[in-house]
Order: sequence, then structure tokens, then C-alpha cells
Amino acid sequence: MATINKNYGLLEGGYLFPEVTRRTNMFIAENPGVKVMRLGIGDTTEPLTPTVIEGLKTGVDNLAHKKTYTGYGNEQGNTELIEAIVNDYRKRGISIDPSEIFVSDGAKPDSSNIQSIFGPGTVAVQDPAYPVYVDSNVIAGRTGPFNEDTGQYEGIVYMPCTKENDFFPKLPDGKVDIIYLCSPNNPTGAVATKEQLKTFVDYAIANKAGIIFDAAYEVFISDPKLPKSIYEIPGAEKCAIEIKSFSKSEGFTGVRLGYTVLPKTFVVENTKKGEMNAAWNRRQTTFFNGASCLAQPGGIVALTEDALRESQKTIDHYMGNAKIIKEGIEYLGLTAYGGVNAPYVWMETPDNMDSWDFFEKLLNEAHVVGTPGSGFGPSGKGYFRLSAFGDREDIIEAVDSIVNNLKL
Amino acid sequence: MATINKNYGLLEGGYLFPEVTRRTNMFIAENPGVKVMRLGIGDTTEPLTPTVIEGLKTGVDNLAHKKTYTGYGNEQGNTELIEAIVNDYRKRGISIDPSEIFVSDGAKPDSSNIQSIFGPGTVAVQDPAYPVYVDSNVIAGRTGPFNEDTGQYEGIVYMPCTKENDFFPKLPDGKVDIIYLCSPNNPTGAVATKEQLKTFVDYAIANKAGIIFDAAYEVFISDPKLPKSIYEIPGAEKCAIEIKSFSKSEGFTGVRLGYTVLPKTFVVENTKKGEMNAAWNRRQTTFFNGASCLAQPGGIVALTEDALRESQKTIDHYMGNAKIIKEGIEYLGLTAYGGVNAPYVWMETPDNMDSWDFFEKLLNEAHVVGTPGSGFGPSGKGYFRLSAFGDREDIIEAVDSIVNNLKL
Repeated sequence: MATINKNYGLLEGGYLFPEVTRRTNMFIAENPGVKVMRLGIGDTTEPLTPTVIEGLKTGVDNLAHKKTYTGYGNEQGNTELIEAIVNDYRKRGISIDPSEIFVSDGAKPDSSNIQSIFGPGTVAVQDPAYPVYVDSNVIAGRTGPFNEDTGQYEGIVYMPCTKENDFFPKLPDGKVDIIYLCSPNNPTGAVATKEQLKTFVDYAIANKAGIIFDAAYEVFISDPKLPKSIYEIPGAEKCAIEIKSFSKSEGFTGVRLGYTVLPKTFVVENTKKGEMNAAWNRRQTTFFNGASCLAQPGGIVALTEDALRESQKTIDHYMGNAKIIKEGIEYLGLTAYGGVNAPYVWMETPDNMDSWDFFEKLLNEAHVVGTPGSGFGPSGKGYFRLSAFGDREDIIEAVDSIVNNLKL
Repeated sequence: MATINKNYGLLEGGYLFPEVTRRTNMFIAENPGVKVMRLGIGDTTEPLTPTVIEGLKTGVDNLAHKKTYTGYGNEQGNTELIEAIVNDYRKRGISIDPSEIFVSDGAKPDSSNIQSIFGPGTVAVQDPAYPVYVDSNVIAGRTGPFNEDTGQYEGIVYMPCTKENDFFPKLPDGKVDIIYLCSPNNPTGAVATKEQLKTFVDYAIANKAGIIFDAAYEVFISDPKLPKSIYEIPGAEKCAIEIKSFSKSEGFTGVRLGYTVLPKTFVVENTKKGEMNAAWNRRQTTFFNGASCLAQPGGIVALTEDALRESQKTIDHYMGNAKIIKEGIEYLGLTAYGGVNAPYVWMETPDNMDSWDFFEKLLNEAHVVGTPGSGFGPSGKGYFRLSAFGDREDIIEAVDSIVNNLKL
């Protein structure tokens, strides 16, 4: 008799974004003719840059001719793309070996799958956090049930990130084994300083913990003092895995391309150098068959100087949106964080209103969709995320509507 | 202290195909100037058809313009592609609901990930089999260690498929929980009849077992009496999950596109209708972010009548190769199976020679690379797989070399 993986039964409710979509669709059905404006999901809206489009077309053309047709690629990624990534790190003064880079179909699959090379252990997450870190560990069996009172899964260590600590957590009190950090942070928009990251690198080395560092949003950092990679912190190569994405920098949310860096020097309890790198290699070669050969040429081109210049304009566009959103919120006398080195504005709800109540209020009064902070974890209560991804005129229209229609 | 997932330590040696590559590269290094011919990995070599190329180009063009640009798609797949797949089944008299189809980046990820929605249990595999079925379950912890003497992992039920049973297994003696079946079979090239599949469907219903049916090669079936889908067998909708691929039919091995059908009627012990479908939906929405938006338009086009006519020519080409290979082997007085409704020829080694010894003999004497049968499981001992994927002239050259140079 086959059975179901019982851990699915532990999962609390639906995934955050489908719930946002469900409530939005319900509003639309009940309010025909009303235009709903979206500052919700962090989905790119700007078209790809000309240089990248040319690279993608070349990829398609190659498949049309016998001489240039290719079938299976390396599960670890196209050699030329890996070299381009190595070179991208080298320009920042970081030395990564090609065998330490694993190209994938994006940061979401990598950040959910990476836990599978670890044994049982205690997971620590920033609170609030991207829900995939927790959910993947619930499904993998590293947690107990969801506790409705605390809003937490038993067995997970939640590290609060609130205005009181500038949205970067203090070290966990006890010992934890696998730590997820995201900077620039989704959802708070906070960027960790080198000093902040160093506290966690030192902790991880001292406690033989592993850090999963989600750097999917690093291109949005404009302040040169802020680290764009955890490998800017000495010792991180021993204790940290870095996850990167082409989604937000290049508009590849639908194209699907990212990569994970797993240094051979990364070790955990009772492993030799290279053993965790080999485990991830085995995981990828067994469960994955490489990112699409249509997407990878786009990644190669995206890392050229021409394409980087072009994509900087796209990034500037989204950050211009963030500024408009933040100023609109502040104009209303509300408090907003993030939005400077990250494409998310993290606002306090008026009078510490429940996040989902504010979701309904914003939708009903201003016809604007956002994402409730509590959906990212219990410390997100009383906060609300607004996304800077969108057309400029749509952003302005949404912010105008908030400023003019939200009843405070 | 973080630890490694100890199940990786249970895995025996490397994945089969990297080992074939390693030995081939060693031969090339030791024999400079010698031309090595490849009948090894089942990798497509024919370019994509014109209609599909146009579809893919439209996909790229859409990303170049603000009005047609799209970001994140549904994790379950593009609605239009799902409709095309539903329609493809409908044409065969099989009714599948759109919510039962999950588009993915290929049959390999799906066939390795699908086990994750099941609880602990005993896995049964055809022996020989595509290594991913076993390896994914080893990593997931459903097995004991590898036993060098038997060539088997403890805890896995191996169902021998040899010439004595026409390469289709008899039912397992005891009770098993998760059963992997592949037809047309990789590596034996055997295709299960309706009667054969019915024995397993009846067993699965009686024992509440789940069948994972890998139909990645169904397009190669030309005999109208042979089933192309397990859902042609009454009752299969209650006990079988079907995995499909665009890799071999459309040459999408590098493009990465496939799908899994998980009917809502599929139940296991203590689950209600729809619960396993919901678990796979949750798995895909948590660990996956949709197949590339560059690949999916190719899939939509690939299922149109024009494209199907074009791809039939590609299929005929590969099956013409299979005929040439089989006739060459038989000309030598050796025995070969498969190659009629499947793109693989499964030959007996001369004098029951060890499969890896024959690999070396074929490489050294004829300079041809194939795949040792024993690499697919202990019952593959004394067999050898030759792949029909290749250019016609390369196939003829390789077969000529085997006929003229293999010392028997």
C-alpha cells in the first residue's frame, strides 16, 4: 500500500501568492468594471534588452540547423556561461572555480532543493522570509506541525527582523544547523552590511552550521559599501552557499535561469572538502537535466558589458518606481522601509493594523493589490510589502490612488 | 552542526552515463587520431522542424516588446499548452482534466521528483531500468545500502526483464508500494502490450500500489495494437501517474519540456480523491517555477497537425537508424531485441560476455561507444544497448565498423 508523504499535511494553508491572487480575483468578480492596480507579486514587466534578445534568437537558430543543433547539455550548465559567471565574480575580486558553479532553472528551485543535501537538523530563517525556505523544509520533514497561536512551525527557529533591529536578525540563542539569509531582503528590502553578515559567518564557522545565502536581488544594490555577495566576507567560502538569479536583473522570471555557488571548501560536520559540492553535483545530475539551452545563451550575453549597460537602465527604472512608492507612502504620514537598494518597499500598516485587513482595505479603498507582511512570517505582522516591478505610469496611477483614496 | 544527507553515501559509483563518457575520453586520450563513433547516450541529433522553430522565435519576440512581454508563468504550465495536451489525449479517446496536467522541464526531473509525494514504502523497478528511478529513491531514503554481490540496493524489489519473459516483468511476489514501469522501455526497447500492463494495473488497484508510468518514448510506437498511454488500460486512472516528454519526439533534449499526468482519481492508502494531485501541485508550486517561457510555445506548436507531420519524419529517421543497427548486429550472428517500436537496440553480448568488457571490446576493436546493459541493473548483465539517435551516415559508418572490425 502506497502512502502519501505526510509532511504535506503539515503545511499551513496555501502558498502566499496564490492566496493573494484568489482574493484579488474575488474582488474583481464582485466589482466588475473596477480597475485593479498591482503592487503585489515581484514580477518583472520590462521587456528584455536588445542584446539579450539577439542572444536568445541565436540560441533558437542554432537548433534549426544540423551543424549547430545540440541535444543534452551538461547538467551543471553550459561551459561558456559558467566561465562568464566565474569572470563576473573575478571582477569583484572573488575567486570561484568553475566546478563550484551549478547553473539552474532559477533561484526558487535552488533555494527549495538545496536543503536536500543536508541531513536532519534545525533550520533558522529570517522572520519575515520568502516562504519557500520554510515550506521546502516542512515537506522534507525537518519541522513539526504549524502552531496557529505563534504562527510558526515547531522545530524552526524564527529570527525576527523588525524595525527594532534594522531588519537584520541577531544570532540565534541556541545552536542551529542550516541558516537561510536573504540580502537584499525579500520582503523587507533591507540590505545586510558586511559587519552584519560577518556575525553570521563567524557563528556558522564556530558551530559548523551551513548558511544558504539568497542573493537573487543583488543587482539592485547601488551603495558601494554594501556587500553584493557573501563571499566578500572572509571565511564565507567555508560555510556559505550562494544562490543567484537572472530573473530580476534580466527580466528572466519566465525564461528561468539562475545558479548556485557551492565552494569545495564548504564543509559541515564529518565531511571532507568537496563532499558537499559532490553531493549537490549528484543531486543535480540525478534530479535535473540542465537549464534550457534556449535560456543559457541569454545568460552568456547578459554578462557582457553591452548587456550590463542596457540592463542597468531596467534596474534604474524599477528603482525609480520604488522611490515613487516610498515617497507616496511617506506623504501619507506612514512609515516605509527598503526601496533604496532593493525593489521592495516594506511599510508599516496604519495603527498596526493586521496585514490581511490592510490588504482588504487597500484593495477596497484604493483598488491596489499588495502583499500582506504576515504572509512572510509572524514578525511580518503589521507590515505590508509593495513591489516596485511595473510600468511607470501604472506605478504612478497606483500611488496616486493610494494617496487620494486610502482612508486614514 | 549541519550534516550531510547520508543517503548520498549509499549511492554506488557514478551515474552510468558519466562513467561511459569518462572511459570514452580515456580511450580518445590514449588513441589520438582514432575516430570514435557514438551509439551510446540516447541524445537527439536532428534539428528542430521549421514549424517548431517559428514557434520558438515567436516566444523570443514576445519578450522583446512591452505589450507581449510576460514574467512568471503558472508553475503548472501555460494554459494553452495544457489545452493542447488535453486535446492530444482526447484524440486518443482519453479524457484528462487540465488540472491533472503538470508541465515541467522534462521527464527526468519528473521521474526523479515524483517519489517525493509518497511516504516511506517499498519500490519496485524493472530490471534493467533507467537509473534515475532507483537513484532518486536511494537519495530519498527508501533503500538500504548497495550490495556488491547482488548488484542491488537492499530494500528495492528488482523485477527481472530478460529474453525469457519477453522483457516484461511478472508481478512481484510480495507486496510493493511504488512501481516504476517504462514503455517503450529504456534500455530494452520492449513495448508492453495492453494485456501486460493490465496485470500491473490490476495488481496496483488490489494492493493500493502506485504506478509511475514513464512514456517518454511513446512516439516511437508504430504498431497500432500497442498502448501509447497507460490510460488505455481501464482502471489506470486510479493507480497510475504518467510521465511524458517532448525530448525525443521534438528534439527538445536541450530545450527541456515534458509533463506529468496525475489524475484526481489517483489514490493511495488513506487518501481521498484529489489529495495526491494536490500534493504534486504543492510540490511543483514550492520547488519549481514553471518550464521556460521560451520552451512552452514550442510545445504548443509541436502538437499541431503540421508539426506532428514534420516530426514524424524525424521519428522515421531514427527508426530507420534502429533498423540498420539491428540488421548489422544480426548479420554478425548476434541476437538483438527492441529497435522496432523503440529507438534502442538491446543486444546480447557474444558468449554472454560481461557488459563492461564488451564496452571495452567494442570501443577498442570497432571504435564504437555503446552502453553496458549491466549499468541499468543486474539483469542487464550480458546485454548491451545501442542507441538509434544519430546522423544516418554516422550510424552506417558505426555499423560498418562493427560488422568489419568486431572480432567474434
